[in-house]
Amino acid sequence: MTDMWVNETLYPYWGQRFRVTRELARTKSDFQDIAIVETEFHGRVMLLDGVVQITESDEFVYQEMLAHVPLLAHGDAKSVLIIGAGDGGVLKRVLMHKSVAKAVMVEIDGEVIRLSKEFLPAIGGDAWTDKRADVIVGDGIDYVKRAPDASFDVIIVDSTDPIGVGEVLFTDEFYQNCARILTDRGLIVNQCGVPFMQADELRETSARRGNFFPHVTAYIAAVPTYVGGYMTLGWAGKDAALTTLSIETITERAKSAGILGTTSYWSPQIHVAAFWLPPYIAKHLPA
Amino acid sequence: MTDMWVNETLYPYWGQRFRVTRELARTKSDFQDIAIVETEFHGRVMLLDGVVQITESDEFVYQEMLAHVPLLAHGDAKSVLIIGAGDGGVLKRVLMHKSVAKAVMVEIDGEVIRLSKEFLPAIGGDAWTDKRADVIVGDGIDYVKRAPDASFDVIIVDSTDPIGVGEVLFTDEFYQNCARILTDRGLIVNQCGVPFMQADELRETSARRGNFFPHVTAYIAAVPTYVGGYMTLGWAGKDAALTTLSIETITERAKSAGILGTTSYWSPQIHVAAFWLPPYIAKHLPA
Repeated sequence: MTDMWVNETLYPYWGQRFRVTRELARTKSDFQDIAIVETEFHGRVMLLDGVVQITESDEFVYQEMLAHVPLLAHGDAKSVLIIGAGDGGVLKRVLMHKSVAKAVMVEIDGEVIRLSKEFLPAIGGDAWTDKRADVIVGDGIDYVKRAPDASFDVIIVDSTDPIGVGEVLFTDEFYQNCARILTDRGLIVNQCGVPFMQADELRETSARRGNFFPHVTAYIAAVPTYVGGYMTLGWAGKDAALTTLSIETITERAKSAGILGTTSYWSPQIHVAAFWLPPYIAKHLPA
Repeated sequence: MTDMWVNETLYPYWGQRFRVTRELARTKSDFQDIAIVETEFHGRVMLLDGVVQITESDEFVYQEMLAHVPLLAHGDAKSVLIIGAGDGGVLKRVLMHKSVAKAVMVEIDGEVIRLSKEFLPAIGGDAWTDKRADVIVGDGIDYVKRAPDASFDVIIVDSTDPIGVGEVLFTDEFYQNCARILTDRGLIVNQCGVPFMQADELRETSARRGNFFPHVTAYIAAVPTYVGGYMTLGWAGKDAALTTLSIETITERAKSAGILGTTSYWSPQIHVAAFWLPPYIAKHLPA
């Protein structure tokens, strides 16, 4: 960390750097290199294998969109499966929804959970001890293989890019099991990278999801430190109507769920518009 | 340019870097340092005083949103004033609209125009020689001071941030003259930075515009190399109805104007949704 900067190493030809005031943790787990640093502007930042996963300053964008959009689109999600998301931020947002009776979180790397609790405690907050939460350190692939049919309404995959430890979360076998363990109107969302920089990720995983779900699309979020314009969140579901709901319906649901007025990025309008993809992104989805 | 990387110097605590294959131009004009480099991923990139202004790879986002949104919202813009935008990209997009009879472009730095024509010829394209275009190397402040009352339907300000040479484009005197030289339903748009990183820019200039225009708002665009989530484009106009038009109306106008189907970021849906600001941005606008 020469000169107190940390350089992201995601791409060979472009990068972002953060001025760092302090290194809080740096370790090699069984799965990846984990670093948590204190930065001058972005608060604390966690990197896995040199790639920015979360910053305190903008985590709200990603977490709100990854949790609130699928849950409110479903409208009556009682049972939610979260894969990855070891920082606890998605779990916290999911548990804000009054409808949710059970949230299972399966994170493969216990060190990510441990370090997040220690150095990023506000991100998970009270979620870690919520009675409705079941936090499992384990393999998401294995979990969906063993889970009973129709046991979840929504699956949220907050993984790294389809390289390294996250790669298996983008396979046929994984999606097939997800389709099986979802209920009738069930759906799965997962991060699909930034199409301006990583178009293959959206194109290939969307095509793959199309083999197991009748309705495949994506929605967008502008995450400041996930650089390159919009990131896409992949969507695969059994009911196409869920992605074209009106602002009025979403507003009503958000009110009942206890979400309205709690958010900094998400709003009913942003929710609806997130499914309106710019042409340069839409072209990567299956026709 | 050690190690063939160029580092943006916009912020003291965060930065982006591009791997460079070739330096095409580097000069000091009467107004600023100008550099044009060939990068590995983003095509050619122009920097002014070390700040990225445009890249060949993503200029379409910024240009489409800065030109098509105000022109289609107005619906019958015949006379357009562009201030700055020396690369010619806004001028090109403005001249795509069949309604436009005259586009005056006033760029203070002739070197930016000269180097753009030489090294970024596709960005301005045929616009430079279009009979409807009047390209003036001069001071935008001075131009709006001398321009006759009600002589423009739309003013587009594509300036640097309100530091350095662009600072005067955010003053009371400038906005007052803009209000005077705009027609009845006239409006002005200008780039207002990335609120996640530069919230003051949106907050302060919006408050200032409010002194001279009855309707002040902003709209958003996710520009890949203008990093930090959404950038905002400030809007000040005389007719509040222009920012809440329906998707159907915008579609119809885009068809007549010859814009529909020509864009990679803009769409009628993106246009309408661009005025729906996330709460973390909306809070910086005047109540």
